[in-house]
Amino acid sequence: MVDSVRLDELSWPEFAAKVAAGAPVFLPLGSTEQHGPHLPLGVDVVLPTGVCERVAKAVGGLVAPTVNYGCKSMPRSGGGEQFPGTLSLDANTFALVLRDIIRNLGRQGVRRLVIVNGHYENLWPSVEGLDLALRELRRDGIDDMQVMRLEYWDFATRPTLDKLFPDGFPGIELEHASLLETSLMLLFRPELVEMDKVPTDGPATFPTYDRFPIPTDFGLPPSGVLAVAVGSTPEKGELLMADYLTHISAAITREFGL
Amino acid sequence: MVDSVRLDELSWPEFAAKVAAGAPVFLPLGSTEQHGPHLPLGVDVVLPTGVCERVAKAVGGLVAPTVNYGCKSMPRSGGGEQFPGTLSLDANTFALVLRDIIRNLGRQGVRRLVIVNGHYENLWPSVEGLDLALRELRRDGIDDMQVMRLEYWDFATRPTLDKLFPDGFPGIELEHASLLETSLMLLFRPELVEMDKVPTDGPATFPTYDRFPIPTDFGLPPSGVLAVAVGSTPEKGELLMADYLTHISAAITREFGL
Amino acid sequence: MVDSVRLDELSWPEFAAKVAAGAPVFLPLGSTEQHGPHLPLGVDVVLPTGVCERVAKAVGGLVAPTVNYGCKSMPRSGGGEQFPGTLSLDANTFALVLRDIIRNLGRQGVRRLVIVNGHYENLWPSVEGLDLALRELRRDGIDDMQVMRLEYWDFATRPTLDKLFPDGFPGIELEHASLLETSLMLLFRPELVEMDKVPTDGPATFPTYDRFPIPTDFGLPPSGVLAVAVGSTPEKGELLMADYLTHISAAITREFGL
Amino acid sequence: MVDSVRLDELSWPEFAAKVAAGAPVFLPLGSTEQHGPHLPLGVDVVLPTGVCERVAKAVGGLVAPTVNYGCKSMPRSGGGEQFPGTLSLDANTFALVLRDIIRNLGRQGVRRLVIVNGHYENLWPSVEGLDLALRELRRDGIDDMQVMRLEYWDFATRPTLDKLFPDGFPGIELEHASLLETSLMLLFRPELVEMDKVPTDGPATFPTYDRFPIPTDFGLPPSGVLAVAVGSTPEKGELLMADYLTHISAAITREFGL
Amino acid sequence: MVDSVRLDELSWPEFAAKVAAGAPVFLPLGSTEQHGPHLPLGVDVVLPTGVCERVAKAVGGLVAPTVNYGCKSMPRSGGGEQFPGTLSLDANTFALVLRDIIRNLGRQGVRRLVIVNGHYENLWPSVEGLDLALRELRRDGIDDMQVMRLEYWDFATRPTLDKLFPDGFPGIELEHASLLETSLMLLFRPELVEMDKVPTDGPATFPTYDRFPIPTDFGLPPSGVLAVAVGSTPEKGELLMADYLTHISAAITREFGL
Amino acid sequence: MVDSVRLDELSWPEFAAKVAAGAPVFLPLGSTEQHGPHLPLGVDVVLPTGVCERVAKAVGGLVAPTVNYGCKSMPRSGGGEQFPGTLSLDANTFALVLRDIIRNLGRQGVRRLVIVNGHYENLWPSVEGLDLALRELRRDGIDDMQVMRLEYWDFATRPTLDKLFPDGFPGIELEHASLLETSLMLLFRPELVEMDKVPTDGPATFPTYDRFPIPTDFGLPPSGVLAVAVGSTPEKGELLMADYLTHISAAITREFGL
Repeated sequence: MVDSVRLDELSWPEFAAKVAAGAPVFLPLGSTEQHGPHLPLGVDVVLPTGVCERVAKAVGGLVAPTVNYGCKSMPRSGGGEQFPGTLSLDANTFALVLRDIIRNLGRQGVRRLVIVNGHYENLWPSVEGLDLALRELRRDGIDDMQVMRLEYWDFATRPTLDKLFPDGFPGIELEHASLLETSLMLLFRPELVEMDKVPTDGPATFPTYDRFPIPTDFGLPPSGVLAVAVGSTPEKGELLMADYLTHISAAITREFGL
Repeated sequence: MVDSVRLDELSWPEFAAKVAAGAPVFLPLGSTEQHGPHLPLGVDVVLPTGVCERVAKAVGGLVAPTVNYGCKSMPRSGGGEQFPGTLSLDANTFALVLRDIIRNLGRQGVRRLVIVNGHYENLWPSVEGLDLALRELRRDGIDDMQVMRLEYWDFATRPTLDKLFPDGFPGIELEHASLLETSLMLLFRPELVEMDKVPTDGPATFPTYDRFPIPTDFGLPPSGVLAVAVGSTPEKGELLMADYLTHISAAITREFGL
Repeated sequence: MVDSVRLDELSWPEFAAKVAAGAPVFLPLGSTEQHGPHLPLGVDVVLPTGVCERVAKAVGGLVAPTVNYGCKSMPRSGGGEQFPGTLSLDANTFALVLRDIIRNLGRQGVRRLVIVNGHYENLWPSVEGLDLALRELRRDGIDDMQVMRLEYWDFATRPTLDKLFPDGFPGIELEHASLLETSLMLLFRPELVEMDKVPTDGPATFPTYDRFPIPTDFGLPPSGVLAVAVGSTPEKGELLMADYLTHISAAITREFGL
Repeated sequence: MVDSVRLDELSWPEFAAKVAAGAPVFLPLGSTEQHGPHLPLGVDVVLPTGVCERVAKAVGGLVAPTVNYGCKSMPRSGGGEQFPGTLSLDANTFALVLRDIIRNLGRQGVRRLVIVNGHYENLWPSVEGLDLALRELRRDGIDDMQVMRLEYWDFATRPTLDKLFPDGFPGIELEHASLLETSLMLLFRPELVEMDKVPTDGPATFPTYDRFPIPTDFGLPPSGVLAVAVGSTPEKGELLMADYLTHISAAITREFGL
Repeated sequence: MVDSVRLDELSWPEFAAKVAAGAPVFLPLGSTEQHGPHLPLGVDVVLPTGVCERVAKAVGGLVAPTVNYGCKSMPRSGGGEQFPGTLSLDANTFALVLRDIIRNLGRQGVRRLVIVNGHYENLWPSVEGLDLALRELRRDGIDDMQVMRLEYWDFATRPTLDKLFPDGFPGIELEHASLLETSLMLLFRPELVEMDKVPTDGPATFPTYDRFPIPTDFGLPPSGVLAVAVGSTPEKGELLMADYLTHISAAITREFGL
Repeated sequence: MVDSVRLDELSWPEFAAKVAAGAPVFLPLGSTEQHGPHLPLGVDVVLPTGVCERVAKAVGGLVAPTVNYGCKSMPRSGGGEQFPGTLSLDANTFALVLRDIIRNLGRQGVRRLVIVNGHYENLWPSVEGLDLALRELRRDGIDDMQVMRLEYWDFATRPTLDKLFPDGFPGIELEHASLLETSLMLLFRPELVEMDKVPTDGPATFPTYDRFPIPTDFGLPPSGVLAVAVGSTPEKGELLMADYLTHISAAITREFGL
């Protein structure tokens, strides 16, 4: 028998047995998006997948294949669609992907689902896709699916953030390709991080509005790194991951009565 | 500089440089689907991804993240949606995913694209998604994107199939979770193959029509393995992969004038 | 009382009575598509409609109006969209048409449905449309609709094909506007066949991949006839039709317990 | 060479030649819908198709295959969806069908199009589908397609209506399965008319509003015949058809400068 | 407690109480569309909103926020999309808006709904949106929502029309920006009417068909006023409003058993 | 000539003249949603409309009709869909509404657009709708539309917030039906505010994740007021409005070079 938290590494009878036993299923939501000159385009896939695998191991869950393409990047959070390598889905497409996956998980007996988002702009269409799926499932006679939906970064504690940002946390919206993501990548996939290319053209200084087409003086650093990545270390990644593991696991255990 | 054929392991400037230099981009299409009791649900992700990585290395290309969820499984090819673990998208959803990814690749300067399908039922909606994307790209003033779209298994040569099936090839439509896929998995991810669980309840003996709801006597083996997986070996996988590498590379070189 | 197998030739009370008595309804799926210089654009409407009418007569069924426009033609099966006269629907449009018709048949009490496809590229979106309709019908409390879905050409027997193709059957995918369709048209609508215009620029010699945009040397005969139509006769059409009538009727009788 | 006004009876080179010569293309829009106990479900297919064929012959045009399924029937015009045999499409589906057909006609060089509607409820979604198609065609660089869209019944002249309705014309909205349609069917397909079943439970006496669900006392005759069909004759059909032929031909000649 | 017939002026507990007591909810459907040089773009919002408020007051109902953007204007009824200031939705968008609002009203306990349309071209997509909503509500287990749908102008009586049009009523389809709408605006919002700008370039003399693109000699008055607005007075508006109030209230009372 | 900043109070020639002169158009985005027991359901319509009218007056702009129905409410920002009176659109519907309105504004010559959002959950689908519209407009040959998109509350300055929240600003996400919105309503529509019903069951204490179905102990105050509304005054509304007027006007003037 294959021993794995990855749903896709199990055979169908193994999957069926786990689901019948009540295993929660984790669905990581990623994107393929610019993350500055020092990080690969796949950061938003690597991080929620890594978080899910660790938490799933802790709570006896399964990790479904990551949604590799995310909803379109906005300038004030991810830098925007104009960066090379950013390959996004329209919001409706992304929501339909979520709807279909969740509906099928429900149809197949999954009753505990944890959606773990790793790309800011997926937040809203993932709520939408979930809402559409639950609506359809109710019509299919399934009304007892329990779902949590979260952004993993919201589980960093204040003490950890204080330790990582002694000068004050600039806020999660600017944390694109910045210290948090870079440190976590140094923990998960250090061979993909090029610390010598960490830029210093940030932080972004956005106005309080969106502007289309994006003017050249919009406050967006040319590197695509919205805040600061200097000083990232695997140890900082470890600190964050410890928070995520502890607190996401605790929340799931509490919510699902595991 | 990260040395990788995987688009998602490159930073955006590295991606931009490769694309500017004319690198073809490979887009593997997978699924999360039952593959019998001896293979994992992720077979259709592992195989086209593996093929793409090897061919991309040979021709100087990049591999985009695999589409992990495929179009819905049909009983006479993949066994159907009723199997545990099969997590499919509606055809329109799948086509829209393809449309969005391809449109964005085109928008970002990619002019040579190879779509490599690893899940039979993706064939048609991938043509549809491609057609929609090219239609939109033309409206956006981009009419010079060159695209190939293929099922990797079509590149096995007759001599290889004769060697693998001394009693005659049962046909690709029954090759679900059977000798070809099992041998390739033994090559790529042997630790995920449980040869002791290879079933012998096949081959499928379908009528010449679809039937809904699927009757219990429809000719579908309970294991979900449509033909025969007994006798699969990594060496057979190697033979197939050699064919794929040689002939897909040759076709790409010829078509794209590399 | 009008005596007809055609649903559209009955009044609503006559339709209601037939449905209440359990008559199976046939839904022919056609297309408007190039079929070479010797056959009319409507071949894919004429043939499945003709097959349905004959089989319906044999089993006491009704034939719904044919869907006259099909899903887009692919180069390696129908020649492709670039031929004059090919008027196709997008896949999603076609699937929605099927969904709506089937849902309404179900809503109106039809419990035995036979979908008879006459255009290769309709295969997949007709499965999709059927799946969407059955999903909706279940939500409407209707879960006992019995459906068969078939390509009529799959009911030609080996002996017949051997007789028609003494040098070996080139395979159904190349049988576009070729000997089978031409012979059947000579049976059904001989006045629309111009045997003196049968081309000899085939057969097609496609590579094992799709290519967009279609190169001039793609192996596609300029006539649009993928294999060979020379030698078509009404007698051959008769042989084929006899197979279809016998074997489709038998399958329906068996499946629906008529 | 096949001599036919029916587009689907021509081969693709014949179609191409006609289009290149500027032949207008007629697209009849039908439905499959209840038309009382004396008329078949296909009335709305037979009539606009028949009108198109006669007018096309007069002006040198081609008739595309009829759209056999129409937009959903409303109680105050067609009786509504609750009648057996009414098989309608959702409005969006119908509009998409029109969009796709018209876009493809435009893509193939057709520059003169006449949409002839035979089912009241198709009016609006056919305008919508046309608008969507023209919008797309403009984006494809085609802005010179000339289109007329009409309900054939609007071309009956006042003298003819006065002759047919000596007691005054009840208005076209109640003319469902009534004297006009019955007389035209007696002209086109008399074998499908059962004059002995003409009901006398009309005319409908609708309130000035829609009501859902439809109450039993809504004013809708149980037969589904909204006005009166008694007195229908083929001669009256002939009178109407003469008007349609004369005045639709004249309008087309004038508009398209034929 | 706020005393208002406007749903949006109540707090949620007040709304809940009214709905629990069986209050009918009115949904006015408007548009933002040209109405000649003497009327503002918002006529189709002002009028159905005003009618709803008066009728709701009479029957103890609530008025939901008006849908401010309507379905696209057609040349032969509203003048068409080419007029400045006409800001329309696609038909499918409009139908989806209706579907969502009605589905949510049903979900929240509303069981008596009156849809009051003030823009001709909204008629059909509002039926469609209603049909889609009721279909979904049935799937959600709600099948007892009672709905009326009406165009307010259909409640003018013959005596009133005779009084207003001593030379004969030109028909409601030409009543765009004409005497009826102008008189009602003089009643509801006189400060927005510029009687000195009432044009005299009408009435429209349309042919019996649509024509795209719209020719300059199509019969459409350049002002966008389809018939005649000269002679409009607030007193005439009062007469009309009295009819609407009396007869819409009576119909609602009768249908809903108030 | 009507003197108004409201687009819908102008006639089409007046609108055309303003647009030709370069007037920016404001599009307020609202919702119909619970706002506690002391505020009406229409708060999110009143506030952005009021802000737009004041700013438009200052910068010579026009205010388009408000979108009255917003995207679905989420528990952690607006309280959620389960509250009576919350009447939301699906995200895709909302995005399509925006797409259509913006596309039509662009088609009609508007080149300066300011989208002013008053409902948190509209943020993302309004970006999506805008992106879809700009994509279509580019295909229509219009690539010079300048757009700003903003949440009006982001223009409150730190000193103002410090003055209003001497104990510290709880953050905008909890400001639903709380001090900011209540004070602004006291400024704009005091007759709709019932200060005696201001609840004290908040503030909300949400966990860092979404949870479906929403548990009874989720931290959501039963009143639907997420933070605190006690202490709201029109003066505080005035302070906020002064900030909005000053800083939104300044941003527009700067961005559009007015």
